[in-house]
Amino acid sequence: MYHSFYYFQLMKNRTFFLFFCLTVGLAPTANAQQPPLEADAEFIRTLYDTALRESNCYRWLYHLCKDIGPRLSGSPQSVAAIAFGQYHLNMMGVDTVLLQPCTVPTWVRGPEPEEVRIVNSTQIGSRPLNALALGHSVGTGPEGLTAEVIEVRSLDEVERLGRAKIAGKIVFYNRPMDPTQLNTFAAYGGAVDQRGLGASKASEYGAVGTLVRSMTTRLDDVPHTGAMRYQDGVVPIPAVAISTNDADLLSRLLQREAVRVHIRTTCAPAGPATSYNVIGEIRGSTHPDEIILVGGHLDSWDVGEGAHDDGAGCVQAMAVIELLKKMNYTPQRTIRCVLFANEESGLAGARAYWAASNAANEYHLAAIESDRGGFTPRGFTCEADDAVFIPKFQQVYAWSPLLEPYGLTFKPGGSGADISGLKSQKGLLFGFEPDSQRYFDYHHAPTDTFETVNRRELELGAAAMAALVYLLDKG
Amino acid sequence: MYHSFYYFQLMKNRTFFLFFCLTVGLAPTANAQQPPLEADAEFIRTLYDTALRESNCYRWLYHLCKDIGPRLSGSPQSVAAIAFGQYHLNMMGVDTVLLQPCTVPTWVRGPEPEEVRIVNSTQIGSRPLNALALGHSVGTGPEGLTAEVIEVRSLDEVERLGRAKIAGKIVFYNRPMDPTQLNTFAAYGGAVDQRGLGASKASEYGAVGTLVRSMTTRLDDVPHTGAMRYQDGVVPIPAVAISTNDADLLSRLLQREAVRVHIRTTCAPAGPATSYNVIGEIRGSTHPDEIILVGGHLDSWDVGEGAHDDGAGCVQAMAVIELLKKMNYTPQRTIRCVLFANEESGLAGARAYWAASNAANEYHLAAIESDRGGFTPRGFTCEADDAVFIPKFQQVYAWSPLLEPYGLTFKPGGSGADISGLKSQKGLLFGFEPDSQRYFDYHHAPTDTFETVNRRELELGAAAMAALVYLLDKG
Repeated sequence: MYHSFYYFQLMKNRTFFLFFCLTVGLAPTANAQQPPLEADAEFIRTLYDTALRESNCYRWLYHLCKDIGPRLSGSPQSVAAIAFGQYHLNMMGVDTVLLQPCTVPTWVRGPEPEEVRIVNSTQIGSRPLNALALGHSVGTGPEGLTAEVIEVRSLDEVERLGRAKIAGKIVFYNRPMDPTQLNTFAAYGGAVDQRGLGASKASEYGAVGTLVRSMTTRLDDVPHTGAMRYQDGVVPIPAVAISTNDADLLSRLLQREAVRVHIRTTCAPAGPATSYNVIGEIRGSTHPDEIILVGGHLDSWDVGEGAHDDGAGCVQAMAVIELLKKMNYTPQRTIRCVLFANEESGLAGARAYWAASNAANEYHLAAIESDRGGFTPRGFTCEADDAVFIPKFQQVYAWSPLLEPYGLTFKPGGSGADISGLKSQKGLLFGFEPDSQRYFDYHHAPTDTFETVNRRELELGAAAMAALVYLLDKG
Repeated sequence: MYHSFYYFQLMKNRTFFLFFCLTVGLAPTANAQQPPLEADAEFIRTLYDTALRESNCYRWLYHLCKDIGPRLSGSPQSVAAIAFGQYHLNMMGVDTVLLQPCTVPTWVRGPEPEEVRIVNSTQIGSRPLNALALGHSVGTGPEGLTAEVIEVRSLDEVERLGRAKIAGKIVFYNRPMDPTQLNTFAAYGGAVDQRGLGASKASEYGAVGTLVRSMTTRLDDVPHTGAMRYQDGVVPIPAVAISTNDADLLSRLLQREAVRVHIRTTCAPAGPATSYNVIGEIRGSTHPDEIILVGGHLDSWDVGEGAHDDGAGCVQAMAVIELLKKMNYTPQRTIRCVLFANEESGLAGARAYWAASNAANEYHLAAIESDRGGFTPRGFTCEADDAVFIPKFQQVYAWSPLLEPYGLTFKPGGSGADISGLKSQKGLLFGFEPDSQRYFDYHHAPTDTFETVNRRELELGAAAMAALVYLLDKG
């Protein structure tokens, strides 16, 4: 999950939500006019029972994490993951499985581990820092680079300090994620510009490299990678994340003395490659032209196992198909599972999907993305084209009594990066929303492993998504 | 956390809750009559910010888990934990800190690890099983015992099978926790009679020992201990938990052949000891005779570190005091933090507390116990004497708009084993309710360690309890 800016455009605005509810007269009591059907409640209960007893999603995730491993766009593992998705969708007996090609940028971390080291502290001498090059960063060359560090809290601060203070230095972005945000994605959204655009900004003012505090609320020794990009026209300079403990250490040192750091990275962009979205669908029995999409992204970063980001989302989307099949449910609409390529570094898979879908005049009645980890479900954020949002949201909100027993609520908010481009089709876009407290403990880090996913939490997410697909299909 | 039966007396009955809401006219819209005060909302927001920025509860838990370790009633570690609680409450500058003595039963696992072994399978030969003696079980003696295993799903089944089938055998209780229960405590409540009373029942019919499937929804190799007791008059026979994977293995073997198992345990009850509840209080400025209690239990089982059960609850209760102090809040009522002794095997600490409190004619306006793990908060279950429950619950329910932004709801349900005996004082009793999905992964097992507690989740629980204490104090 990378595209947080997007997610928080709507979410930030609580006032909007309250105003909205008041305006359209939404209150739980309004649902009394549309009593939930007992049959729907029973179907959903059975979906949950089946997910908790029989779903294969946890087993699939084990395979994806342990046998395949991390799945950087264009890597051999990403190819294996595509075959994995294709195989299991075929095995479930859906009507169609296809691979949709796209061209992805690739990047390699290089043959040698990152070396980042304080070289001259009078207090602690020479000391290595726990570091990971940011995705798509250039490397330093074999000699590495050594320069004085200047700490900043924001891109704006780089501008204010100007070339006189920045040129020739390593800029160290050290604004932490705000721990007081209850939703950690909000905290991420408030800090991740440093990782994504910090190097470009520093380069504009003549910096020779950047260090960035890892995007996590934890204080530990684990560095977190993630995408960065160079804006047009800037000189690409190396960009590296360091662990939060090391960021705190470096910051303390800088309060007392000038500190020089040596950086040596062997990473490099490596040209385009062909990758694929994996698409499997059950064709609708009565409204085949109305598509309900469930998806996640199959690519991940190259460290850890891409378990929460986004192996969990992929196997949950697959499990929606599995659950409907196990229940012998014949959908009226077309239910389509999409495992997107290249969410982490450019959305090439998503863009290919949107282009093909629009070219074929498809209509996505709804799309649901799971890309916020495999934690206990809390509900769904929901967005649509302004022209249709209110009536569509009202319809969905009326299902609340059916989903509240499972701890699920609907609220306005961004959906998911891979489905965001479908908004012009005027359907409803949902982001599956699990509990967010632990997500950034693991995000883009070597610690994002299978062991950190709780089986029940994962299965409950699959059941929640399947329940929503069922309600959308029944209409 | 042991006393699950109690917790589910009320919780089970969803119908009761719905009926109750309808009868007393509780609906979210009813709150419009009592608009929350902006000042209260602000205070609670600051409590949360302070908890997430400055609370020491995670650091305290580290010390309790890593430096002190597991804290079996009467053990040297339990003494260290009492000193730990006393020290930190004193350091916070509360008005009174005292130790309240109680007599606790003790038990030792013995000098040698449990040996449990399939001895004669024609399919797999001899094979050890992952096992832990149950708390307060007798040992087998140095020779151990070997007998044929009979698998049952319930205590009733032992009765039905009768002495002819049971005598001379090892009874293997293998009814799993129901995975389809959304609240895992309900699943625990539905299975734990096998652990607590299975040995007694088996002994009545002449069994020589019992094995019980570990009380967890996970399938893994970790055995989970926990309390058992012998009913009066039965011959005490050894009782041992085996891991869920080994329970499944044993069950599969038993479908094909008679299986004999050897059990050797060196555990033994070890007589009474003196232990202490740790009590620290801030005396109320205007209503000192109205007590608001926050608590957890300081004892744990002897394996793992007692992190979720119930180190988390203890440091959260301590953090309530810390947070109110940090905010320079002067309570009107007496705020009392109680770290109970001996919840896991007899409630001796709680009983001493109730007796002393009743003898002193105290009135607990409210008591809140945290003993369901340090996971993301969901709300509070609430109970009281029947004569006062409805009006008191109504008052609390009216605070919902203040706590809903933090994901907290109030619902009727059991509170906590240590505070349950205060009901006769006609105050409100609350159980802090976090997300339950992971609790039984770790419960009473070697895996209940500090590492499984997420800092933010723990701190959010402390903030939730502090917010409720604040609202109760303001009245």
